[in-house]
Amino acid sequence: MGRSMHTSITVETTDRVSVHDITDNVSEAIPVEVGQGLCTVFVPHTTAGVTINEAESRLIDDMESKLADLVPTGQGYGHDEIDDNADAHLRSMLLGQSVTIPITTGDVNLGTWQSILLFEGDGPRTRTVEVAVIPA
Amino acid sequence: MGRSMHTSITVETTDRVSVHDITDNVSEAIPVEVGQGLCTVFVPHTTAGVTINEAESRLIDDMESKLADLVPTGQGYGHDEIDDNADAHLRSMLLGQSVTIPITTGDVNLGTWQSILLFEGDGPRTRTVEVAVIPA
Amino acid sequence: MGRSMHTSITVETTDRVSVHDITDNVSEAIPVEVGQGLCTVFVPHTTAGVTINEAESRLIDDMESKLADLVPTGQGYGHDEIDDNADAHLRSMLLGQSVTIPITTGDVNLGTWQSILLFEGDGPRTRTVEVAVIPA
Repeated sequence: MGRSMHTSITVETTDRVSVHDITDNVSEAIPVEVGQGLCTVFVPHTTAGVTINEAESRLIDDMESKLADLVPTGQGYGHDEIDDNADAHLRSMLLGQSVTIPITTGDVNLGTWQSILLFEGDGPRTRTVEVAVIPA
Repeated sequence: MGRSMHTSITVETTDRVSVHDITDNVSEAIPVEVGQGLCTVFVPHTTAGVTINEAESRLIDDMESKLADLVPTGQGYGHDEIDDNADAHLRSMLLGQSVTIPITTGDVNLGTWQSILLFEGDGPRTRTVEVAVIPA
Repeated sequence: MGRSMHTSITVETTDRVSVHDITDNVSEAIPVEVGQGLCTVFVPHTTAGVTINEAESRLIDDMESKLADLVPTGQGYGHDEIDDNADAHLRSMLLGQSVTIPITTGDVNLGTWQSILLFEGDGPRTRTVEVAVIPA
């Protein structure tokens, strides 16, 4: 058996823009025999992203609003002539596509208020999230 | 002994918003027997973040000002009704909560001008930073 | 032989601000014997950054424009008195300096539309990008 372990998570997003708490999905992807290590959560899409923050519904609305404020839809972006979703690409750029989290005592070692949040910028779609674990 | 090594760093922040150079703390957290590998610096808080840049005092002021410019305090955020610190959460979202740095010759392989910077968005508080090392 | 493997990539950037697709360079830096693992791409510069998105020319123009819109050049930044490149440092802060990507079947497991993009904010220069691989 190799040392690294890879799992794919599937998320059905629900709107053009939405945020999904995938913390439990990531926890379940960590093999029970892994006590310590690193966990990388990677989004293989260019119009989605991942971040870690508090999964509080009004804060999630604030996140979506702030990203829309910094990157408004349809501002004459060149890429809109091709695919009409430049806003989603640029919001993904600001958020990032991967987070790496320590694993201790068999789970991602998140802080009390932290959840792993998938940002959908151009849905609804079936999205994949890759979870790669390097065990101790 | 497992292969991964985990250390917690404690930082006492000094103001509501502040930036702290934690490069030396991270270097000290790398065990002497580790020659090569990866180092993840993870902030387990939702109103703080971590980035890598030049620890020059006027640039640090510029960073704080730019984050305040992009995410002004008290703009009617929904989360402010719960905790009155949505600005800090949203600035954390823009910065990110983890950085991963190669380890070569026994230390994080930073560029000449790079320092590891903890961003405090809702202090002063006692903050923890997790350092996870995967040795070669 | 240690488990981790480190390679430096050199990129000659072409303008003050430019974006370079380094996906092929990263793929070539993964040793053929590595089937699974993690790959960290790290930029050891404070006026450059790295992100993952679609390498479509109009979108790349949109990325440069959006970063210039969020962080305009020469807005009285304190650091400009020292080095006159605060805009590049602050754009680097928004993008980030590292991405971590799963390796499966011998290569970085990118999505269909994803490329690894080096952002140059204060060129033209000779830039180095570090690729660290932790094999399975």
